[in-house]
Amino acid sequence: MTDRIPVAVLGATGVVGQRIVRRLARHPRFELVAVAASERSVGKRFADAIHWLETDLPDGVGELEVVPCTPEAAGAPIVLSALDATTAREVEPAFARAGSLVVTNASAFRMDADVPLIIPEINASHLTLLDLQRERRGWEGGIVANPNCATAVVALALAPLHRRVPIKRVAVTTLQAASGAGHPGVASLDLLGNVIPHIEGEEQKLRDEPRKIFGSPGMGGVTLSSFLVSPQVTRVPVLHGHMACIAVEFEKAIEAREALECYEGWSPAVSVVAGLARPQHRIDVDRGEGMTVTVGQLREDGVFGLRLVALGHNLERGAAGAAVANAELVAGRSLARAI
Amino acid sequence: MTDRIPVAVLGATGVVGQRIVRRLARHPRFELVAVAASERSVGKRFADAIHWLETDLPDGVGELEVVPCTPEAAGAPIVLSALDATTAREVEPAFARAGSLVVTNASAFRMDADVPLIIPEINASHLTLLDLQRERRGWEGGIVANPNCATAVVALALAPLHRRVPIKRVAVTTLQAASGAGHPGVASLDLLGNVIPHIEGEEQKLRDEPRKIFGSPGMGGVTLSSFLVSPQVTRVPVLHGHMACIAVEFEKAIEAREALECYEGWSPAVSVVAGLARPQHRIDVDRGEGMTVTVGQLREDGVFGLRLVALGHNLERGAAGAAVANAELVAGRSLARAI
Amino acid sequence: MTDRIPVAVLGATGVVGQRIVRRLARHPRFELVAVAASERSVGKRFADAIHWLETDLPDGVGELEVVPCTPEAAGAPIVLSALDATTAREVEPAFARAGSLVVTNASAFRMDADVPLIIPEINASHLTLLDLQRERRGWEGGIVANPNCATAVVALALAPLHRRVPIKRVAVTTLQAASGAGHPGVASLDLLGNVIPHIEGEEQKLRDEPRKIFGSPGMGGVTLSSFLVSPQVTRVPVLHGHMACIAVEFEKAIEAREALECYEGWSPAVSVVAGLARPQHRIDVDRGEGMTVTVGQLREDGVFGLRLVALGHNLERGAAGAAVANAELVAGRSLARAI
Amino acid sequence: MTDRIPVAVLGATGVVGQRIVRRLARHPRFELVAVAASERSVGKRFADAIHWLETDLPDGVGELEVVPCTPEAAGAPIVLSALDATTAREVEPAFARAGSLVVTNASAFRMDADVPLIIPEINASHLTLLDLQRERRGWEGGIVANPNCATAVVALALAPLHRRVPIKRVAVTTLQAASGAGHPGVASLDLLGNVIPHIEGEEQKLRDEPRKIFGSPGMGGVTLSSFLVSPQVTRVPVLHGHMACIAVEFEKAIEAREALECYEGWSPAVSVVAGLARPQHRIDVDRGEGMTVTVGQLREDGVFGLRLVALGHNLERGAAGAAVANAELVAGRSLARAI
Repeated sequence: MTDRIPVAVLGATGVVGQRIVRRLARHPRFELVAVAASERSVGKRFADAIHWLETDLPDGVGELEVVPCTPEAAGAPIVLSALDATTAREVEPAFARAGSLVVTNASAFRMDADVPLIIPEINASHLTLLDLQRERRGWEGGIVANPNCATAVVALALAPLHRRVPIKRVAVTTLQAASGAGHPGVASLDLLGNVIPHIEGEEQKLRDEPRKIFGSPGMGGVTLSSFLVSPQVTRVPVLHGHMACIAVEFEKAIEAREALECYEGWSPAVSVVAGLARPQHRIDVDRGEGMTVTVGQLREDGVFGLRLVALGHNLERGAAGAAVANAELVAGRSLARAI
Repeated sequence: MTDRIPVAVLGATGVVGQRIVRRLARHPRFELVAVAASERSVGKRFADAIHWLETDLPDGVGELEVVPCTPEAAGAPIVLSALDATTAREVEPAFARAGSLVVTNASAFRMDADVPLIIPEINASHLTLLDLQRERRGWEGGIVANPNCATAVVALALAPLHRRVPIKRVAVTTLQAASGAGHPGVASLDLLGNVIPHIEGEEQKLRDEPRKIFGSPGMGGVTLSSFLVSPQVTRVPVLHGHMACIAVEFEKAIEAREALECYEGWSPAVSVVAGLARPQHRIDVDRGEGMTVTVGQLREDGVFGLRLVALGHNLERGAAGAAVANAELVAGRSLARAI
Repeated sequence: MTDRIPVAVLGATGVVGQRIVRRLARHPRFELVAVAASERSVGKRFADAIHWLETDLPDGVGELEVVPCTPEAAGAPIVLSALDATTAREVEPAFARAGSLVVTNASAFRMDADVPLIIPEINASHLTLLDLQRERRGWEGGIVANPNCATAVVALALAPLHRRVPIKRVAVTTLQAASGAGHPGVASLDLLGNVIPHIEGEEQKLRDEPRKIFGSPGMGGVTLSSFLVSPQVTRVPVLHGHMACIAVEFEKAIEAREALECYEGWSPAVSVVAGLARPQHRIDVDRGEGMTVTVGQLREDGVFGLRLVALGHNLERGAAGAAVANAELVAGRSLARAI
Repeated sequence: MTDRIPVAVLGATGVVGQRIVRRLARHPRFELVAVAASERSVGKRFADAIHWLETDLPDGVGELEVVPCTPEAAGAPIVLSALDATTAREVEPAFARAGSLVVTNASAFRMDADVPLIIPEINASHLTLLDLQRERRGWEGGIVANPNCATAVVALALAPLHRRVPIKRVAVTTLQAASGAGHPGVASLDLLGNVIPHIEGEEQKLRDEPRKIFGSPGMGGVTLSSFLVSPQVTRVPVLHGHMACIAVEFEKAIEAREALECYEGWSPAVSVVAGLARPQHRIDVDRGEGMTVTVGQLREDGVFGLRLVALGHNLERGAAGAAVANAELVAGRSLARAI
C-alpha cells in the first residue's frame, strides 16, 4: 500500500524523541512503525507516556502504544535513537547486530573511530566508515551518529569558512537553551533570571566533535582535523535555541567580504542575516523548520581574525531534525537493509 | 555638627543615579546635599521623580526636592554624575570649572588623555592626570571617570593575572543584564526568553577602556597597554549582573595553580570561587554589596592559555558603587576642594 | 485577474498591525492593497518601518511601501485598523465617511451605541447596528469593532455557559502577556521575574465590553446584559497569551457535567481540554492558529458556582485574528461596498 | 555563657530549611545546636548537603555537620521543622513525645483539631490547644504549625478586614513563585515564559486553613469560621513571592475608607501601599525581611464588595520566617520545656 520505509524511534517519549516522532508523523518517505521507550512507559499510550507535552500531538500519534527498546519489539530497517548515552551504549548495538541501521542522537559512540559522525551538508562522505564498522563489529546493520546540539551549530557556522581558508583556532561561548537538558532537566529555581556557566560534558564535545566532522575518513577511521576549539558553555533562560559567539583565527588572513562569499550556496542549512542585533532566539530559531543555522554579525576582528554569532535550534538541527536528516541520507544511499 | 563632605548627585533619578543616592544616604563620610536631574523632574519630590522604583527608598530620601543640574543649584566639593553621555558632555565641565571634582559614570570623557579612568584597586595612581587636566583646561575642579560596566568586570577579573604575566590577547563574550540599559531600556518583548547579541557602542568600550586602565600615566596622558580585547557582547534576560566568559592568551605560559595564586590579596574586590557551575548571577551578584567581582572556572586552556568566567554587579561595581568608590578615593587623597 | 476583495491595513507597522498583515498576505479572499502607518513610517519599506520584527516576514510583504492613513492613500472596501485609540478616533471616521467599512481593533468607538462590537461566533447579529450607524452618522461605510484582547478570551469562555444558564456575576483575574502592550510596551526591568497587577484602562473594558457583546441589539443600540464582571488584571512575564481565572455565579445552579455539555459545538472557537494543569500558555496559545480559546479545569465551586481557566492568544483571537475574522464576516454578508 | 534557647532544624538542607538556618544563625534568642536532614545528607558538611545554594551562607553555618532527624541526634527544647508532609507525619511526633516543642512548616498535622495553626499576629490565642494536644496524645512536648505559604498571605491580608466586618465569601487567584515548590521543584521547561494554573493540594489548603485560623478555639478544638474561600492557584515565572488577587464579599457593606482604616496598627505584619501598580514581587517581596504582607489597590468593587491585591514572601512569611516567628511566640510564653 505504501513504499515508505518502516522506521522506529527509541527513547520516543523524551523531549528529543517527541520531536523525532512529530517529524516522522508527517514524513513523505518514512513510515513510523514503533515508538519505544523505557519499561516505565511500555504499554502506555504515547500521549500518556511523554515526559513533557510540548504542543498538541499530530493526529493519531497519541494513540500509539509504547513498546520496549528491543529489536523484537522495535526492529526496523532504520531506527532513530534519542536514548541517553548510558542506555544507548547497551541498546543500540543490539539493534545494529539485528540488522537495523541506527541513526542516533546519543553521544555513546560518536567518537568511535568506525562510527560516522555526520552532518549531511558537511561530511556525508564519512558514511564510508560504515564498511569498516560492519567489518570490525560483524554487524548487519550499523550506527550513524549526529553531533551534539551545540557542535551542530558551531560546525555548520564554520564549515563554509573552513572549506575556503583552514581555520586554526576558535574561541566560542555558547548560550544554550533549557530544552537542551531535556525534561525535567534544569530546575526553574536555577534558571529563572539566572545564567549557569556550565553543562556537564559539553565542552569536551565541542573540542572533539568538530575535529572529527572536519576530519578525513580513511581505512582505519577518521583523521581528526587540526582545527582547535576553546569553548565556554553557558545555560541561559531561553526555551529553545543555542547561540554561539565565535572568534576565529585562520591559517591565513581573510577579509569580511571574502568570508561572506564563503556562505553562498549553503542556504538553507546556513543562512547569513544582516542587522546588528541578529541572530536572536525569538526571530531566528525556527527558520527552515529549525534546520537553518543563522549567522550574523560576520565581521573582521583586529585581534583574532573574524567574529560571528550563530544560532540554531538545539532540538531540531541539534537533535531530532539532525537524526531525521541522517536517516534521509542513509535511505537515499540505500544503506539500510530490509529486515 | 558633622564633618562629612557635602556631595551632590547629577542624573539622580535614573537607575544608576538612584543606586548612588541609596549608597550616599547611609554613607559615613559623605553628606548628600543635592539630587539633581533634568528639567522634567526639577521641583518634584525625589520619590515622585525616579524613573523606576527598585525597592523602598531609604528614609528621608524620597522627600528630597530635585534641583537642576547646574553648579548654582547642585554645586558641592564632590559631585557624582550618572548623566547620559550627551548631557554629561555639556554639564560636567561646568561643574569642574566651578570647582567641583566630578566623579562620573558617563562615558563622555573617559578616553580623553587627561581624564583619569579609575578602578581604585587597579590604577589609583592615574589620578596624577588631574594635574594635567587642570592645567590644560584651566579648571579648579576636575573630572574623574569610572569605566563602562562590562569593562569594570573584565578589568578586575584580569588585573591580578596581568600584573603577574602580561596578557597579550583576550577573547571575551559578555552576558549582560537588562538593568545595564537603564529604564525603560530594553523592551520586555525583546528580552523575555530571548538573547540580543548586540549593545550599541559597548564593544568599542571593551576594546578601548581596559587598555587605558592598564596603561601607564605620563606627562601627556596615559600610554595605552598593548593588551588587546576581542569582544562579543550580548544582552540576556537577567535583571542585574554582567557575566564575562574569557579566554586569555599570555605573553608567556602560565599554569592554573600560578594563575590562582595571582588572586591572593585581591579580595573583596575580586574573589575566586570553586564549583563547576559558578559564578552565577543569582548567587554571586550581590557579594560585597555588589562590589565584588566573582571569578570561577579558572582553568588552563589548551588552545589559548587560560579560561575563566567573571561576574559583577553592573549597577554597583559597574556604575553606582564604582562612582562612590572613586569619590571615596579622591576624598581620601584630599583632591576635592571646598567650594 | 482576481476577485479577491481589496483591503488596507491602518497602523500596519505595530505588533498587531504586523500580525494582520501576516494573515492577509496568505488570505484566500482578501487582497492586501495598502499598508498604512504614521508619518514617521510613510515612504519606507514595510520591513524597515515595523517596530519589532517578530519572525521573518512572508515573501513580498517587506517590500511594500508604507502609505499615510488617509482614504486617498489607503482607501479600500474593507480597511482593517490596528491604530491606537487616540489616532483611531480621528482617522477611522474619515475612512467610514469615504465609504470604507472599517474593521477596527481600536477601543475608540467600541462602546458607542451604534457601533457593533462583534465576536462572530457570539453576536454576529449585532451587525444590524450598522444601519443605525450609517443613518445617524451619514456614512457610506461604517465601523465594526472587535473587543479588547482580554475581553475576547473571557467572553468566548463564558458564552457557551451564559447561553444555557444566565450568568449573574463573574470574578476574574487575568494573567496577561507582554505583547498585549505592544512594542516597546512594558520595560524588561518591570517584567523580568516580576508581576505588575495593573494595566491602564483594562479593567473598565472587562466590565463594559462583555455586557455589550452579550446584550440585545435594538432600534436605538444595544441593551446591555445584566451580566456583571469583577476584574483584577495582571501582567506576567510571558510573551503571548492572556489567561483568565474565572469564578462564575449563575442565576440558578449548574452541575459540572451540564457545564461541560454547554461547550459542544463551539470548537474550534472554544475548546475544552482535560488535565489538571491546563490550559498553559506554551502548550495552548497557538491552537487554531491562535483563534482557539482553550478552557480547562471546569469544575463546580462550592462557594460561587463554577470555576474555570481560559487562555487565548491576545494578538490573534484578541486582536489581529479577531479583526480579520470580522472582516470575513462583513465580506460574507456583503456589507462592504466597492469604493 | 549564653542564655539563648537551644534549637534544632529538621529538613535543614531544603529551600525552606536553609532559610530557617539563615534566620537562626543570627538570632538573638535562639542558639542553633543541630541541623538535621535525611540519611543522604547525614555526616556531610551543611554547605555540601544543601540542595540549592541561594547565596553565600552565613559564617560558620557551612561547617555544621548534618545529623539524622531523631530526638537523640537533634533533640532540643524547640525544634523547627521544614520536613515534607510524609516525613513529618512520622518524625515530628517522635520529637513531641521526647519533649520537644515542634514548630512545623509541614502540612501533616495542620488541620488536626488539637494542633494550633498559628499566625502570631492573628490567633496566638489558639496556643491553648496545646493543653488538649498534650492530654490527648500523652506528649511532653507538642506540635505547633504555621499555615501554607499562600494561606499566610491571604489570611494576613484579610484579617484586619474580617476583624471589623465579618467576611462571607472570597474569590482569590494566586500567582505563586517557583521557590514555593522547593528544589528541584518545577522544571524550567515548564515555567520559562509560561504559567501553570495548578499546584497539587494547594487549593484545598486555601479553602481549609483560613477557616481554622479565623476560627474559635474551644475545649474540643477549633470551631471553624464560616468564612468561605474559592481559590484558583497558578504558578508564575517568578523566583520568590506569592501574590493573591482577592475579591471579598462581606456580611454587610463596607466603604473603601473604612476598609483602609482597618489596617491601622497592623504594620509591619501587613502594610498598605498606594500606587495603581502595586504590590509587585520585585519591589515588595523583601519588605520587613520578608515578613511583611503588602496590600495594594484596596478599592470598592461594585460586584462583590471589595477588591485588593496582596503579596508576601512565600519562603519567609509563608514558611521559614513563619516558623521562626512561631518559635519566638512559644519561647516568649515559656511553652517549651528544657529537655
